[in-house]
Amino acid sequence: MLTNYSLDDLIRRALEEDIGHGDITTMSTVSEDKQIEGSYLAKEDGVICGLPLLARLFELLDPSVKLEILAKEGEPVIMGEIIAKISGPARSILTGERVSLNFLQRMSGIATRTHSAVQQIAGTRAVIADTRKTTPGLRILEKYAVRTGGGSNHRFNLADGILIKDNHIKAAGGITQAISKARKMATHMLKIEVEVESFAQIEEALQSGADIIMLDNMSIDDMTRAVDMIAGKALVEASGNMGDKDLRTVALTGVDIISVGALTHTVRAMDISLRFV
Amino acid sequence: MLTNYSLDDLIRRALEEDIGHGDITTMSTVSEDKQIEGSYLAKEDGVICGLPLLARLFELLDPSVKLEILAKEGEPVIMGEIIAKISGPARSILTGERVSLNFLQRMSGIATRTHSAVQQIAGTRAVIADTRKTTPGLRILEKYAVRTGGGSNHRFNLADGILIKDNHIKAAGGITQAISKARKMATHMLKIEVEVESFAQIEEALQSGADIIMLDNMSIDDMTRAVDMIAGKALVEASGNMGDKDLRTVALTGVDIISVGALTHTVRAMDISLRFV
Amino acid sequence: MLTNYSLDDLIRRALEEDIGHGDITTMSTVSEDKQIEGSYLAKEDGVICGLPLLARLFELLDPSVKLEILAKEGEPVIMGEIIAKISGPARSILTGERVSLNFLQRMSGIATRTHSAVQQIAGTRAVIADTRKTTPGLRILEKYAVRTGGGSNHRFNLADGILIKDNHIKAAGGITQAISKARKMATHMLKIEVEVESFAQIEEALQSGADIIMLDNMSIDDMTRAVDMIAGKALVEASGNMGDKDLRTVALTGVDIISVGALTHTVRAMDISLRFV
Amino acid sequence: MLTNYSLDDLIRRALEEDIGHGDITTMSTVSEDKQIEGSYLAKEDGVICGLPLLARLFELLDPSVKLEILAKEGEPVIMGEIIAKISGPARSILTGERVSLNFLQRMSGIATRTHSAVQQIAGTRAVIADTRKTTPGLRILEKYAVRTGGGSNHRFNLADGILIKDNHIKAAGGITQAISKARKMATHMLKIEVEVESFAQIEEALQSGADIIMLDNMSIDDMTRAVDMIAGKALVEASGNMGDKDLRTVALTGVDIISVGALTHTVRAMDISLRFV
Amino acid sequence: MLTNYSLDDLIRRALEEDIGHGDITTMSTVSEDKQIEGSYLAKEDGVICGLPLLARLFELLDPSVKLEILAKEGEPVIMGEIIAKISGPARSILTGERVSLNFLQRMSGIATRTHSAVQQIAGTRAVIADTRKTTPGLRILEKYAVRTGGGSNHRFNLADGILIKDNHIKAAGGITQAISKARKMATHMLKIEVEVESFAQIEEALQSGADIIMLDNMSIDDMTRAVDMIAGKALVEASGNMGDKDLRTVALTGVDIISVGALTHTVRAMDISLRFV
Amino acid sequence: MLTNYSLDDLIRRALEEDIGHGDITTMSTVSEDKQIEGSYLAKEDGVICGLPLLARLFELLDPSVKLEILAKEGEPVIMGEIIAKISGPARSILTGERVSLNFLQRMSGIATRTHSAVQQIAGTRAVIADTRKTTPGLRILEKYAVRTGGGSNHRFNLADGILIKDNHIKAAGGITQAISKARKMATHMLKIEVEVESFAQIEEALQSGADIIMLDNMSIDDMTRAVDMIAGKALVEASGNMGDKDLRTVALTGVDIISVGALTHTVRAMDISLRFV
Repeated sequence: MLTNYSLDDLIRRALEEDIGHGDITTMSTVSEDKQIEGSYLAKEDGVICGLPLLARLFELLDPSVKLEILAKEGEPVIMGEIIAKISGPARSILTGERVSLNFLQRMSGIATRTHSAVQQIAGTRAVIADTRKTTPGLRILEKYAVRTGGGSNHRFNLADGILIKDNHIKAAGGITQAISKARKMATHMLKIEVEVESFAQIEEALQSGADIIMLDNMSIDDMTRAVDMIAGKALVEASGNMGDKDLRTVALTGVDIISVGALTHTVRAMDISLRFV
Repeated sequence: MLTNYSLDDLIRRALEEDIGHGDITTMSTVSEDKQIEGSYLAKEDGVICGLPLLARLFELLDPSVKLEILAKEGEPVIMGEIIAKISGPARSILTGERVSLNFLQRMSGIATRTHSAVQQIAGTRAVIADTRKTTPGLRILEKYAVRTGGGSNHRFNLADGILIKDNHIKAAGGITQAISKARKMATHMLKIEVEVESFAQIEEALQSGADIIMLDNMSIDDMTRAVDMIAGKALVEASGNMGDKDLRTVALTGVDIISVGALTHTVRAMDISLRFV
Repeated sequence: MLTNYSLDDLIRRALEEDIGHGDITTMSTVSEDKQIEGSYLAKEDGVICGLPLLARLFELLDPSVKLEILAKEGEPVIMGEIIAKISGPARSILTGERVSLNFLQRMSGIATRTHSAVQQIAGTRAVIADTRKTTPGLRILEKYAVRTGGGSNHRFNLADGILIKDNHIKAAGGITQAISKARKMATHMLKIEVEVESFAQIEEALQSGADIIMLDNMSIDDMTRAVDMIAGKALVEASGNMGDKDLRTVALTGVDIISVGALTHTVRAMDISLRFV
Repeated sequence: MLTNYSLDDLIRRALEEDIGHGDITTMSTVSEDKQIEGSYLAKEDGVICGLPLLARLFELLDPSVKLEILAKEGEPVIMGEIIAKISGPARSILTGERVSLNFLQRMSGIATRTHSAVQQIAGTRAVIADTRKTTPGLRILEKYAVRTGGGSNHRFNLADGILIKDNHIKAAGGITQAISKARKMATHMLKIEVEVESFAQIEEALQSGADIIMLDNMSIDDMTRAVDMIAGKALVEASGNMGDKDLRTVALTGVDIISVGALTHTVRAMDISLRFV
Repeated sequence: MLTNYSLDDLIRRALEEDIGHGDITTMSTVSEDKQIEGSYLAKEDGVICGLPLLARLFELLDPSVKLEILAKEGEPVIMGEIIAKISGPARSILTGERVSLNFLQRMSGIATRTHSAVQQIAGTRAVIADTRKTTPGLRILEKYAVRTGGGSNHRFNLADGILIKDNHIKAAGGITQAISKARKMATHMLKIEVEVESFAQIEEALQSGADIIMLDNMSIDDMTRAVDMIAGKALVEASGNMGDKDLRTVALTGVDIISVGALTHTVRAMDISLRFV
Repeated sequence: MLTNYSLDDLIRRALEEDIGHGDITTMSTVSEDKQIEGSYLAKEDGVICGLPLLARLFELLDPSVKLEILAKEGEPVIMGEIIAKISGPARSILTGERVSLNFLQRMSGIATRTHSAVQQIAGTRAVIADTRKTTPGLRILEKYAVRTGGGSNHRFNLADGILIKDNHIKAAGGITQAISKARKMATHMLKIEVEVESFAQIEEALQSGADIIMLDNMSIDDMTRAVDMIAGKALVEASGNMGDKDLRTVALTGVDIISVGALTHTVRAMDISLRFV
């Protein structure tokens, strides 16, 4: 799902950024023929994400580096577990070490947090979804990490989903008008989602044929009432600082989707290190 | 310090990523001549960072958008404070909203955390420095945010600083050899930093003329002893999971630099929103 | 809807391609201070498309060129009508002439053909939609030209719509399985479209909850029967060499969408020329 | 003649445009290890062009895809003929299908039309040439397709040929002055072509040493008279809506070159499909 | 002739290369509001080239910098003469100083050398031309500098001129075959140049209709004899280490073009400095 | 030290620049299956530099070209010596010939000149260093060529070294203030260099803790006195038109570094040719 095609540019920019005009420490202290062996090691429990990127990074930096991947993308590892073994020219491995970890740790951090959120709502009808609150330039990786952790993706960008918010409603002159205008421009393949803040708005959205209704910052009681009111005539999404709420309680209201911006806007890198033999 | 020259490419990529082939919701529901006014609002206390980028983003997206900046880059704001006012074509502002917040929230999050770390060691001789554990592709912004929060920058990349680590020492055949080799290749303008794990290594580093000695994962007691031993003959840097330690205690050992990877590898976005009138 | 943001790169590449290392004829024969005036002239009836691009092209090439646009984007012009007046430095206008016409003529050609198709089905419930059979690299312009001519857009690319075809069905083990798998991976904002070739497949698609059913290369009679069978439970799209068919007859079967690859794969440039005073 | 060197960027842009952040239908419905076999099939008679590009596209997308090319670049195929066989991972082939066809069909469409024009003038001294009326960004492919179809290329861009038109003549103060000025700036390796509209202009062009004389929109009789008058002292090019004229009649006037903008400005994609076993 | 369009990318790359992630010396020692005035000063006699680039560089770096250009592009200056005055923000001027000089000094060095060569052959029929022996990536600037110094340009690249050399002749099976094959592929707007090493080859080239004959490394006597032999039936170019020869003697043999690789392959930067008031 | 990673973009740009839309002479006169063999030959004594780039260039252009490198990077060759043998498809080799020579000749020219400068000061304590007076866009190659010739590199760009010059001193209000300000912003890994023009300035620089003192345009006597005065408390760099001076005399004053702008601003290409069998 992460193809070389989508990764190469990101990896090259990251390498250029970190290597600049050359890794002068390594070039001066390590001879060209020196070989080295090491292991990517989990220093805490977590869900690993980013292994295809790790592999591709060294392919681009130096194809003679060998990588043996032991962990499985998207599966939990425990503290002390070896994620992958690496061997080859010491210069290339030392030069690529930091960038490889920067990617792997962030992506695994996101997958781990998502996995934890998904477990909290296990057994309910809801799914955990991400938002567009991603790191500029890295959305493709971060949305992939959410999926890897068991979450769902919300729209990728402003072009591939219609989400009518407060200001769109005001500008269009009401929910009915907004939905009608959006339906005209959008391709027929897109559903229409509307953000609502009151029961009156839910009523109008349903009558206008909204496919998805987003409940913005509602109380648990209001969400429960909204789900009853919608009664399966549209999908229901719970939204608004979900990162700070008890997700299970939210899920038990019967909503279909819980979107959590914190999955990607507040990232704690998973602790992974590269240890050499 | 953040020039258009360095920002434009980052901003363009972020806009392309988020807008794709067009913001279909906004284009269909908001008429071309609709004007709008709003405010960037701090929803919690923090240190603001990223205002030049905010200004440049709208210059690139639509020069007719007006931005009145009220907060000062690098200074604290309190919850409820207005950071900037924005007005102009509703389409452009709504389309640029998410990307502008994604940048501003992350950068302010880093500046806020750095500011807090700097305050913890106030009055000591130490400075708080960042590392290369930054988000791939955004290092220039993240290192700027650290400076904005009152921190110092460590080397920007592998080309503009010599930092001899464990594996370089082994590969070169010892600290003495590694320093000597690095001195030959490096420009005469770079100092030489060596990572040490023992007092014997400190001794060897001092004798070989290391300019900076990095104490890797030492206990507080060992750091104190190391600072005594080095006695001003080299700068001393404390390193190794500093994000989890009491920074004041570390600073009081007398080290010159405390480098904290967590400043950039574990980022909590500051809560900022764009509210429309 | 065509923002500078999306146009600039396309225009720059086109100018680089056509100008190479310099327009030697113009630079040698036309003095730097020579001014010129001219008109973009419709040499046949058609629907004009591409005026924002025309304006932006000269802004990028030479901001001192003045363009007065007389026609309206998306509206018909008749043979002999002046589309826009241009004046300014002769060198810049002569150098940009060919590229500006290459864009304008192609886009107007697509808009004109789309407009004609839309008129053929006037009064029916159907809309005319484009496909992904666009010129590589110019999709954003060609889909815009289709909208400008009164058509609808089908999905923009493989990421923003689910269209399950023959081979996906086979690979998944049946329509039911394919829809179920797609539903899991797709964001909740996307509808699911399935291509069918038989009535049995329509039945299965409906039972599996397909949102849109594409009738591939069916006869008029079969399309009529299919529309009856589907009875509003899904949108219906007619597809397959529609460029060669009588669109009104197709529309009268009751389908919702008629997708016509020829709108963009077989383009006849509208005859437009730039005449100087 | 189409090297990877010139194709890669075009192909990558086309793939990015069509795939976006991922082919979600294929990724969800087709398993990673599924293999597939298919054939590129001519659905009408034509001249095939673009086979090197087809091969390179799959090399870039997925090197494990195998392509066996059966048709010969630039040679006619008949309806029903297999152009190439393809086999390998179903995901890669389905994802690359549309872009591969978009290139192949357009280029074969141009080659086919050119071939037909060339046949119309068989046995005369004239050649069929293209113009700069090409699709922005794809000129290298379209001029290659013209050559593949048996045509000749006119200048590639404004930098590699001197063509003095109406406005250059006016700006320079006459044909004599224009030629003299152009001769000074141009490299000595370029011939000088002048566009003329009258016999007086032909006379002046010959006396000024024009290497090529372009007859713009002349009647057949005038062209015949012009060829007589020029009498081999310069090459003669016929130009002006040649796409709508009887090319054989034009050729029989004795002109050397007939340039036909419609070869590239009005393209009908050849009907080619990819059928799977 | 050097448009922003062709310069911007070159300038941006040069600035990125020299500034990296920021001019730390200037940013730390010079306050943001500090203004400065200075002059670009000729420290030796020469011909100035690169003024449009100088102007554009500061427009891109900081539009508030003012530049008053006193010298004329392509005209001689004497030691001590002020070429241009500059004033504005000290930070921007100091940061752009080195790159501006690197361009200006190299281009003026080439123009100066060319000017000197042109003067040596004043009054003869010959022109001085450059070659493709230019600095990789800077050809457009270097060929412009040659023109600015009074020289002529040879072909810009392998696509816009036909020059049949030794190995092409061997591969084609002789001069006659090579010319015939080249004529077929080339556009009709290109002349055909052939490199010859003997009088027999000259004979064959003339009979095959070569437009230009390049005499490769011939003695002065042989060149004289060749010019006689060719007798105006083709242009004659003298080539081969012309940088080491007496150009006037070569010119007096009657050749039309003398191509001098050393104009661009061996560059001595003109001594120019930026002095502040 | 020159990795593919850093070379590829430079090579591609150079090839694009020289080949344009195709090498028409070679494509028309040389058949696709023609093989050729040749040798890169030193036509004068010199130090070879650029062999990794030569290898990479043909890998990118055509991987079937074989290159056997006989000379050693950075070692002297004598006139007539074969540097490398090349064999493979004639088309690819002829098309890449000029660009390969343009790189190799310039880089070897720089290495040769540097080698000669280094030999002049053999046995002294000084090293020869380059400056930022490099060809825009090619700094990484030119600084590498200096190292290959035995020289040292000065800072690579404005971001990786602090060099306080005249104007920085004035703007900061004196050497003491400038050093203090620079120390605050710079990373702790950079030394601080100050340019001085008088003994009073040397005194102030020493007292302010400058790590390196650059003597700008001083006489030999003054340099000797300065070295005495500094007495090892800082490194000493001699600068200012060193290309025109007797380097041994400069070195014997006891300075540590002699920086020579002419190493890169005034380049004489080494005479190397590609001869075919």
